[in-house]
Amino acid sequence: MPRIDRIPSQSTLITRTPLPNSRKVYVPGKIYDIQVPMREIRQTDTIERNTGKRIANPAITVYDTSGPYSDPNVHIDVRQGLERIRENWILERGDVEKLPFSSSSYSVERLNDQQLDYLRFQHLRSPLRAKAGANVTQMHYAKKGIITPEMEFIAIRENQLREQMQADMAKQHPGFSFGANIPPRITPEFVRDEIAAGRAIIPANINHPESEPMIIGRNFLVKINANIGNSAVSSSIEEEVEKMVWATRWGADTIMDLSTGQNIHETREWIIRNSPVPVGTVPIYQALEKVGGVAEDLTWEMYRDTLIEQAEQGVDYFTIHAGVRLPFIHLTANRVTGIVSRGGSIMAKWCLAHHKESFLYTHFEEICEIMKAYDVSFSLGDGLRPGSIADANDAAQFAELKTLGELTQIAWKHDVQVMIEGPGHVPMHMIKENMDKQLRECYEAPFYTLGPLTTDIAPGYDHITSGIGAAMIGWFGTAMLCYVTPKEHLGLPNRDDVKTGVITYKIAAHAADLAKGHPGAQYRDNALSKSRFEFRWEDQFNLSLDPETAKAYHDETLPAEGAKLAHFCSMCGPKFCSMKITQELQDYASNLGVDELAALETGMAEKSEEFKEKGSEIYL
Amino acid sequence: MPRIDRIPSQSTLITRTPLPNSRKVYVPGKIYDIQVPMREIRQTDTIERNTGKRIANPAITVYDTSGPYSDPNVHIDVRQGLERIRENWILERGDVEKLPFSSSSYSVERLNDQQLDYLRFQHLRSPLRAKAGANVTQMHYAKKGIITPEMEFIAIRENQLREQMQADMAKQHPGFSFGANIPPRITPEFVRDEIAAGRAIIPANINHPESEPMIIGRNFLVKINANIGNSAVSSSIEEEVEKMVWATRWGADTIMDLSTGQNIHETREWIIRNSPVPVGTVPIYQALEKVGGVAEDLTWEMYRDTLIEQAEQGVDYFTIHAGVRLPFIHLTANRVTGIVSRGGSIMAKWCLAHHKESFLYTHFEEICEIMKAYDVSFSLGDGLRPGSIADANDAAQFAELKTLGELTQIAWKHDVQVMIEGPGHVPMHMIKENMDKQLRECYEAPFYTLGPLTTDIAPGYDHITSGIGAAMIGWFGTAMLCYVTPKEHLGLPNRDDVKTGVITYKIAAHAADLAKGHPGAQYRDNALSKSRFEFRWEDQFNLSLDPETAKAYHDETLPAEGAKLAHFCSMCGPKFCSMKITQELQDYASNLGVDELAALETGMAEKSEEFKEKGSEIYL
Repeated sequence: MPRIDRIPSQSTLITRTPLPNSRKVYVPGKIYDIQVPMREIRQTDTIERNTGKRIANPAITVYDTSGPYSDPNVHIDVRQGLERIRENWILERGDVEKLPFSSSSYSVERLNDQQLDYLRFQHLRSPLRAKAGANVTQMHYAKKGIITPEMEFIAIRENQLREQMQADMAKQHPGFSFGANIPPRITPEFVRDEIAAGRAIIPANINHPESEPMIIGRNFLVKINANIGNSAVSSSIEEEVEKMVWATRWGADTIMDLSTGQNIHETREWIIRNSPVPVGTVPIYQALEKVGGVAEDLTWEMYRDTLIEQAEQGVDYFTIHAGVRLPFIHLTANRVTGIVSRGGSIMAKWCLAHHKESFLYTHFEEICEIMKAYDVSFSLGDGLRPGSIADANDAAQFAELKTLGELTQIAWKHDVQVMIEGPGHVPMHMIKENMDKQLRECYEAPFYTLGPLTTDIAPGYDHITSGIGAAMIGWFGTAMLCYVTPKEHLGLPNRDDVKTGVITYKIAAHAADLAKGHPGAQYRDNALSKSRFEFRWEDQFNLSLDPETAKAYHDETLPAEGAKLAHFCSMCGPKFCSMKITQELQDYASNLGVDELAALETGMAEKSEEFKEKGSEIYL
Repeated sequence: MPRIDRIPSQSTLITRTPLPNSRKVYVPGKIYDIQVPMREIRQTDTIERNTGKRIANPAITVYDTSGPYSDPNVHIDVRQGLERIRENWILERGDVEKLPFSSSSYSVERLNDQQLDYLRFQHLRSPLRAKAGANVTQMHYAKKGIITPEMEFIAIRENQLREQMQADMAKQHPGFSFGANIPPRITPEFVRDEIAAGRAIIPANINHPESEPMIIGRNFLVKINANIGNSAVSSSIEEEVEKMVWATRWGADTIMDLSTGQNIHETREWIIRNSPVPVGTVPIYQALEKVGGVAEDLTWEMYRDTLIEQAEQGVDYFTIHAGVRLPFIHLTANRVTGIVSRGGSIMAKWCLAHHKESFLYTHFEEICEIMKAYDVSFSLGDGLRPGSIADANDAAQFAELKTLGELTQIAWKHDVQVMIEGPGHVPMHMIKENMDKQLRECYEAPFYTLGPLTTDIAPGYDHITSGIGAAMIGWFGTAMLCYVTPKEHLGLPNRDDVKTGVITYKIAAHAADLAKGHPGAQYRDNALSKSRFEFRWEDQFNLSLDPETAKAYHDETLPAEGAKLAHFCSMCGPKFCSMKITQELQDYASNLGVDELAALETGMAEKSEEFKEKGSEIYL
């Protein structure tokens, strides 16, 4: 059972320091009065080898998911929650009403239970809901041609690296432009059109005004999700809030709260009120708690109440396993690992017990009605995903995928945003089929995959077995990658595991951005490699995804401060540093005239004496 | 400078324990009197859920690189070196002669230096060399139609998983066979023919009779290499020997000794005498030491002496950067990271200093004469590989690759075995071009790549950035993957880093084997997944690539011995374990008749009461 020792206190537990040599910058909107936060990494100067002249290197501004926690100028009190930056945007649209109290009977019950006062978020606010007949989804606005502040926020956020690289390249090559098929800028109009087409979603519940808008779609940067949440065996509320802060610090674009056990209603409130990123859940987990863990006792009515409860708390997307249909269950009978989705196995059990079609499937339109009243996005769950290489791409998996496509069409009819969850365990040669089929059968709704894991034989390293698959499927078009930690299959991830999972998935997402030719993605690679080549060690650390680890590894063998200026590291030592030797080569080449360089090409010139002479100066 | 504290002592430092629940088994040859070592992992019984009946699970035999160290029945004294299992095979071919002393003047000089006695390997033996006019390469034998004991050894070794899976599948599906394009068995004849065609190599120096034969080629299991070796900054002989034992314990198929600094001659002797896997080196490193680190002072004569020195010690393959030609050097001038290969930068410096073509290129045929007298294989180095995403697939890299193809033809003329080294830093979408070009321009000689790293922005995690690329290029056809550790770019790997690098690359290699449809590769995945599904925790750990880590991660939250029998872990807890729920489902389904199962498909049956009744029994 979760241990609730004490409620969160900002002073002791929440990580607030900025990353090294970084500061938060805010880019203002042009249409709306918005401030888009980014992280600026300052670089040191290049010192020209021969002249000693200092040449400034530009600060690199990168996409930043860490929210106000990494801005020391922002006062944060986790008991109050974050600033509600989207509140006015939502209210000014004039299509919502403030409810006197939650319309979920369970929420009301919890609120009235004084025994829970000690762990309740202390500044609960009345929930918002769409006015009768109104639809408050970003898709609904987009289809009407409206650009929302959320869309402009996203356009600025997604555009940053692209603009930097554009400016930088244009300096070197006047008239530079990215390839013909690549829009030079992400505009608010482009964001709107992608949302209207269903190719992207903005998870943005009207009851989560604290979140910084972000987009999930394959024509944008690849995103990653980190799962947090206790299990019945360990963890506490306080740890959950810091886990969220911790995961977003390293780059989680969304988090999913997968808590089970007691008090998950209260835990969730704390997390959402303090989360700068969208929060997803799997409502069936809580529903199952409410019926004491007996799947057969689940009912549509209590599930519906759970959806409303969570929607009014501000959950931005729901994983709903509505594609686990009764007729598909027997398709899993001969699998090596059966059904490995928790939600999928729960619903399969319910279906078999009642010999009825899943209530998630039969009540799907009613679910849509709830989603559009709060702008909760669907994450249509892959309850029949393969749990082993042997089960990959089988009939059960693909029967469900086809159903998810049908449900996507229904959701879109209601202007409800949809993404589709994907596998699982899939060997490399079978990954692309997943992507191609998903795009075709789900009408280009964004794909959101777990891994996939490319082999089963490395428990303890499944962040890596799955990072391989994640990078590939991201390249092929998956919009968001759900992280896997080293503890997958073995236990609940701790703080270090969460970080390792997030960094591994940032690598996969970034490798995918590069492979997709996303304009600007390579800007950070180029800056880091330049700093590496120039032995600007601190810049190399600071530009990396995990400056702390890079620095710690370097310092393990060469801890002295002076080593940060050294033109070698302990890997190859001073005499064998290829970069050092190359610099010497380049110094030499830069002293040659045009004719001499041309002569090099023929390899006929005989200038050894001259070089030896120059060389003896260089090698001081 | 390397610290030589004391010479190795088996009692304190060398890891000798078998992996958990594993024992060494030996499969005898049919043609020759050989014993092929493998690792057998015993499994526990499956306990049938409803009856409690025990069903035995087969032991799984896996490819084993760890040599006799993991066999407690073998007495090992590192001062004596390993048993020379190949000695008679070599001598019985009748084409070698025993030299009275080394034909390298440097070797003789070292031997006569009494100050080195304290760190010298104590049982030095006279080197072997091909008799005048003889050619002792495996390629030479293969082209003559000879099947050597090495070839039969390899056929048995490579065939094991395939045979197990074949037998297992045939039990379930009589008449089972692998796909039409897949040979049902790896035969000695097939090994020979691949060697003769140059599509595979057997690195097997006649002076390294301790090594267990292995093959590198794309129609065999994908192999991995681990680099060990000190740098001038740290490490000692004793650590190097244990590093080799450690790396092979976790799965390194070959090791490269990249030591620099003093006493590398003596260090190498210790490593080779105790290495059950082929050892590669980059001779130019030692050559540079001999001229005090001044690249311009390198000469063909002293390089040649170094090749002979190392060949007579038993090095199985040499990285030789003979493709770094004078006319290509200017192509690196505008790169972001110039030349990042140590050997490449040394040779480039030499070429420029002398304004002469590389002596490695001009003396290539003479090098072949040396190689064939000892059966040292070429690993033609990619001295101009890209060191950053920005430099990937550029003119310099591909100019060198084409040259390596030309050199391959020359080596084959001498029946000398060749593999080709590859990049480096390459984004995912540019990886396949590397493989395709290599196969075409190097006439299908095996490819041996470092990574490639798919992004530059994650120092500290480059085992992962490169593991992604390695898995992909392995799938596309690379025969051996050179590991990258988390310390890449930052410092010298320690024991943990070596293990992490090796395991990551075993994952990449295995994922590639699966993707290539290598028969039998999936056998271990299936066994592990079955054990996972049946909550045979210990089997799940023991079948994994790293049983220690898997078990430690599990035990972090559930350390009690009883938890190893539990039908859940701390990740999801007991109520939410999908595998547990699925087992309940399957128990239920197995009680249904054929008609009932068919009825499920229509989803029309109404049998809920019956299931609840049965269910209440199942959920005890």
